[in-house]
Amino acid sequence: MKNSALIILLILFSFAHAQGPVQTDFTQFVNPFIGTDKMGHTFPGACVPFGMVQLSPDTDTIGYWDEENNGYNKKVYEYCAGYQYDDPTIVGFSHTHFSGTGHSDLGDFLIMPTKGKLQLNPGTADHPEKGFRSTYQKETETAEPGYYAVKLDDGGIFCQLTATERVGFHQYSIHETDDVHIILDLIHGIYNYDDKNVWTFVRVENDTLVTGYRQTSGWARTRTVYFALVFSKPMKNYGHKRYDEWVYRGFYRKFNEEEKFPEMAGRQIRAHFDFKIEEHEQLRVKFAISAVSTEGALKNLQTEIPGWNFGKIRQQAKEKWNAELAKIKIETMTPDEKIVFYTAMYHAFISPVIYEDVDGQYRGLDQNIHQSDGFTNYTIFSLWDTYRALHPLFNLVQPQRNNDMVFSMLAHFDQSVHPMLPVWSHYSNENWCMIGYHSVSVISDAIEKGIFTGDINHALDACVKTAEYGPFDGLEYYMEMGYVPEDKNGSSVSKTLEYAYDDWAIAQIANKAGNEEVYDRFMKRSENYKHVFDPEIGFMRPKLSDGSFKKEFDPLDTHGQGFIEGNAWNYGLYIPQQPHVLVEMYGGKKKFTNMLDQLFTLQLEDKHIEANEDITRDGIIGLYVHGNEPGHHIPYLYNYTGHPEKTQERVRMICNTMYRNTPDGLCGNDDCGQMSAWYIFSVLGFYPVCPGSDTYALGSPLVKLAVIDLGNGKTLTIKTENQSLENVHVKSVMLNGKKLDGPFVDYSDLIGGGEVVFDMVH
Amino acid sequence: MKNSALIILLILFSFAHAQGPVQTDFTQFVNPFIGTDKMGHTFPGACVPFGMVQLSPDTDTIGYWDEENNGYNKKVYEYCAGYQYDDPTIVGFSHTHFSGTGHSDLGDFLIMPTKGKLQLNPGTADHPEKGFRSTYQKETETAEPGYYAVKLDDGGIFCQLTATERVGFHQYSIHETDDVHIILDLIHGIYNYDDKNVWTFVRVENDTLVTGYRQTSGWARTRTVYFALVFSKPMKNYGHKRYDEWVYRGFYRKFNEEEKFPEMAGRQIRAHFDFKIEEHEQLRVKFAISAVSTEGALKNLQTEIPGWNFGKIRQQAKEKWNAELAKIKIETMTPDEKIVFYTAMYHAFISPVIYEDVDGQYRGLDQNIHQSDGFTNYTIFSLWDTYRALHPLFNLVQPQRNNDMVFSMLAHFDQSVHPMLPVWSHYSNENWCMIGYHSVSVISDAIEKGIFTGDINHALDACVKTAEYGPFDGLEYYMEMGYVPEDKNGSSVSKTLEYAYDDWAIAQIANKAGNEEVYDRFMKRSENYKHVFDPEIGFMRPKLSDGSFKKEFDPLDTHGQGFIEGNAWNYGLYIPQQPHVLVEMYGGKKKFTNMLDQLFTLQLEDKHIEANEDITRDGIIGLYVHGNEPGHHIPYLYNYTGHPEKTQERVRMICNTMYRNTPDGLCGNDDCGQMSAWYIFSVLGFYPVCPGSDTYALGSPLVKLAVIDLGNGKTLTIKTENQSLENVHVKSVMLNGKKLDGPFVDYSDLIGGGEVVFDMVH
Repeated sequence: MKNSALIILLILFSFAHAQGPVQTDFTQFVNPFIGTDKMGHTFPGACVPFGMVQLSPDTDTIGYWDEENNGYNKKVYEYCAGYQYDDPTIVGFSHTHFSGTGHSDLGDFLIMPTKGKLQLNPGTADHPEKGFRSTYQKETETAEPGYYAVKLDDGGIFCQLTATERVGFHQYSIHETDDVHIILDLIHGIYNYDDKNVWTFVRVENDTLVTGYRQTSGWARTRTVYFALVFSKPMKNYGHKRYDEWVYRGFYRKFNEEEKFPEMAGRQIRAHFDFKIEEHEQLRVKFAISAVSTEGALKNLQTEIPGWNFGKIRQQAKEKWNAELAKIKIETMTPDEKIVFYTAMYHAFISPVIYEDVDGQYRGLDQNIHQSDGFTNYTIFSLWDTYRALHPLFNLVQPQRNNDMVFSMLAHFDQSVHPMLPVWSHYSNENWCMIGYHSVSVISDAIEKGIFTGDINHALDACVKTAEYGPFDGLEYYMEMGYVPEDKNGSSVSKTLEYAYDDWAIAQIANKAGNEEVYDRFMKRSENYKHVFDPEIGFMRPKLSDGSFKKEFDPLDTHGQGFIEGNAWNYGLYIPQQPHVLVEMYGGKKKFTNMLDQLFTLQLEDKHIEANEDITRDGIIGLYVHGNEPGHHIPYLYNYTGHPEKTQERVRMICNTMYRNTPDGLCGNDDCGQMSAWYIFSVLGFYPVCPGSDTYALGSPLVKLAVIDLGNGKTLTIKTENQSLENVHVKSVMLNGKKLDGPFVDYSDLIGGGEVVFDMVH
Repeated sequence: MKNSALIILLILFSFAHAQGPVQTDFTQFVNPFIGTDKMGHTFPGACVPFGMVQLSPDTDTIGYWDEENNGYNKKVYEYCAGYQYDDPTIVGFSHTHFSGTGHSDLGDFLIMPTKGKLQLNPGTADHPEKGFRSTYQKETETAEPGYYAVKLDDGGIFCQLTATERVGFHQYSIHETDDVHIILDLIHGIYNYDDKNVWTFVRVENDTLVTGYRQTSGWARTRTVYFALVFSKPMKNYGHKRYDEWVYRGFYRKFNEEEKFPEMAGRQIRAHFDFKIEEHEQLRVKFAISAVSTEGALKNLQTEIPGWNFGKIRQQAKEKWNAELAKIKIETMTPDEKIVFYTAMYHAFISPVIYEDVDGQYRGLDQNIHQSDGFTNYTIFSLWDTYRALHPLFNLVQPQRNNDMVFSMLAHFDQSVHPMLPVWSHYSNENWCMIGYHSVSVISDAIEKGIFTGDINHALDACVKTAEYGPFDGLEYYMEMGYVPEDKNGSSVSKTLEYAYDDWAIAQIANKAGNEEVYDRFMKRSENYKHVFDPEIGFMRPKLSDGSFKKEFDPLDTHGQGFIEGNAWNYGLYIPQQPHVLVEMYGGKKKFTNMLDQLFTLQLEDKHIEANEDITRDGIIGLYVHGNEPGHHIPYLYNYTGHPEKTQERVRMICNTMYRNTPDGLCGNDDCGQMSAWYIFSVLGFYPVCPGSDTYALGSPLVKLAVIDLGNGKTLTIKTENQSLENVHVKSVMLNGKKLDGPFVDYSDLIGGGEVVFDMVH
């Protein structure tokens, strides 16, 4: 006791000290390479928190989508972020990347510096020498929050990258030569396939400024990103090649467009800009993006990086990251835990991304230009993933941003023609990925937590209209029958369960808004999970439109059994809004405890493991698949069966085995921060089993101490007494000196700040 | 004499009367079908003066561009306006059409009403029954300025069309049925070929409002037009089909997008909107366009046609036309002459078109959205054609609009990355069609005539930079050598001659701006025509880069002989800035008179006639090709050889034989009004041989009387005494009571108003 108290004092002292001139540099605890190997799908490149630019090396992108096979092509999945840690070559640096998604897009505007003979063909991973792609030595590669560097073997060019919210900044150190080329590859993109590029446009405005755009149709069907690019010195020449299969040139034929013709346009274009480089000179490139216009991109560029001081921008990026990472100060048991934790913080704060120009203009879902009025507009809402823990985390440490995100969702709704709140908001598009209408959960949680500053009736209206849009994913059947019939609409059980939860979330908003009719209606809908539980076999089971259950049924199978990316074992335990009913349905506390025990101990057969997408084998414990989201609340369900100690064991186990300080340290897709947010909550000792409610389930903290900046001037301190790697079980929990009755704690009791003290059994 | 004086008095009385409540309806003298047969390339549909919308029936469009053959496919050429008078079927009504061009584009947003079984395939001209295309009876078709109507055989639907500047208004009278479809064909377009459609987007905003856009790459490489469409009653159903060769549907696959899915997007889409129609009900459609956004289109729609009164909008359109047509009031010798004249006025006032939303926003050449500040922005500048007579005509009767057009050209220059003034301004694009940089002529003429209200130094800078853009069409050689060498750049003589004239026009601006250096430099350049005259053979002749003339040379041939759309005979007489030098070069007045005589009397061989594009055989007199532009000044050249009577004869002959009140009444492409403008000037008795100068050459007026509203509060009256069809020769011309010395008159002497009296030899 004495020792740990001393440690806490020392830590507190160091934090107090941090308020002074020498602040702790939390970026030193971030390893951006975590998750870049195998299925983490993170990228190592440079970005600032929630920035629109993610400037990162692409080692491969796989220009292939297997339409026949619903896209299930393993090779495709590896390159969602354009990078695999072990790849020996880099094709260039592109400016937009998803972090941790399982499907993909982006990779806009590849820039590659080359020396010597101009090569406009990228070459292949197997034959990098056939194009501008280059090998590189792993030891030359470094990554920090807001900074990435690598030395390319070809030409020995040392490449440094940093970024602001909307601008990527490249610094290339090149030996003296008169033959340097900056390739701008507008064909390049992540998940490229034939015809994905709809149109590209490039204007050489003068000898240092280039503008243009890239318009694609992929995961986002109608997407355009504009750019403005400035070189630190005048180009001496430029040109391009248009690779379109068929080109109508019309009266452009009077020009040799490939040489120094300042307006290039087509579907498939690669441009080059040529420079003479003096000894010890560095060539710098500032590359701004915008969803509005090239004028907007230029405005972003001039506002965010008016000068040429690379070091200054790099330092600013570091400071921005420090400001975000410092929101939770922790002391851990091992150095690696600290790195895993702050890297999780880093990954949790990459997206959603700011999606507006510096002047607040953004492209709406209707493709018109809107002005964000009183909020900052965001995109990349991977909501089936992130409603679970990422947005609840934001409510805790990013309340202002989460409020802005809710405003962004409502703006999306206002612009939606269906109308629906976002399912997966993707650069002025709805990409419809995955199931549910989980915006309502995020909104409900923000309202429950008092974060939302907007009109609750507008919010409620948006949620209700969303939940009543019949053509969406079996909703018309769900509304009519109380469940999605599997013969009419697949993944029917997953949908029914998630709709029921979402409906509960809507009811909570109605309650706050004092709208009884909607409250009653949606509370009734929130019990629809009952329709897909088969008491005969004790599993959630797909029901057909005639009211009978689907005959052939394998609760272990993840395909065609009524579930999406899960099975009856790990997806069927999803009634977060009424966990006690869940326990009862499955036979009461004892039986359900046994079932959970089985879940974590039964061994999946190989065929079922292989059927799980986007995860590595490390991401599986028994039948529990942590590498994907539907079961993220499951470890906490023991709290409802009278066995919180089992929750504590499982949570500790998952934290210790599935999050590691290695490139393959993520056991599945980070999914825009959801995997990381699960970890952050769990490390702190609690988890939002049911977003939209006031309650967190308690787990077993991994920290010795954590100080959380609640964004309201208050701090919440988590202390763990008798903490050790072995001391997993919690003896008692005190909140501001008062002992908690059970393994739960309320947000409303935490948000005023103070101290939670876990005393561990030792 | 007495009789004619009496007639004049009667006419003047009727004009005076016209100021009162009963105004003359000049639209009764317009026959929109003139030029719709054969090579006139006009359209019969509805538009208002200089309106962005030209809502017109398409009988065919020919989806074919012969790239190998430089596009010279006769069948293509017929359908520049989407219509041929004798075609027995109509495929629908599209909203944008060029008037009289020789190459084409547009045909955006085809709407077709159908009844009975839904057909989304258009069918073919040979088999209209295989699609939504319909036959129609010629006698059901009527066209007036601002109004078009036809009864479709299929379903017996009576279709009426009218328009405002930015909105097309359809009224369909349909017998009672519950099965009416409005087809919106976004694949349709004029000069469509594979891959022309870049992207299309449609949103069903509610049960009466649809928005979207069409993005194409054709003659204009990067062109997008947005729309907003409102139905007069709610649709009962809708759907679409996407015909893209390959479709990536991603997670859209969860929907049946073809039925009632409110957001459609793809390269090749046809949508249908279905209605139940009561007895005697009319279904109306308002269709607004914008180059800015769907929001802009909706704003245009709501501003220009807030209600549903078709008759009122039709009446407004008529009044708008009347206001423009009334700018020249004439009395003619025959009724047909009046119709031909007012139809020429009608055709002259269709384009350039207003290219901005009602709030002044427009898409610039840089694809960014701009606000027109202090001017109205226009597009469709077919300058190689229209600088000759159309813009000079505007200076006379549309000074404010021509000033706006000059401002539009300067805005184009400011947005141009080359930078150049427009060669052919085409919906936020430069399509580079034809040769020369004739914006400078329009600007010079507007400055000379005192119309231009902008900054002359800005104008001069734009002109000089344009004339110095080396990569354009041999300009770098021209600047270095004083001529375009044929071995370096084809059509070299045409280019050299036109550049020299344009340079003279620039020099005039420099003179006004007091910039001696530029004046001297460009006056020197203006004599460059000398380099391509071969005194040995007495013809303009292509010179090679070694200074020698091209050896194989046929002055009659129109291809590969240094000329474009002309030959040495009819294109070689082009030195409008120094016609006296021209006469001297060709051997003096006598020899040149003989040459002109020969030109009008020698018979072209068939092979040479066929080589002339865009004209009918009617458009040729000897070697003189009136159906194309390069020789439009030639009939007036006799004025410089001491034989104005021959000018008078030729002008009268051309007016009488090449402009007729029949569908095939235009002998060549109207070319955005240039052919019509030639006629209007010639009918009035004078012609701008050298735009940019103060001087008009006199001809032989066809009118008995004309009263021209000069737009400055003054009127100019042209009286012809002893006028008759036979009395072609002019005895004397009096200007405000003073006899003119020679066959010329100055603009500066006319613009103050007054009276020009031609006394004809009788």
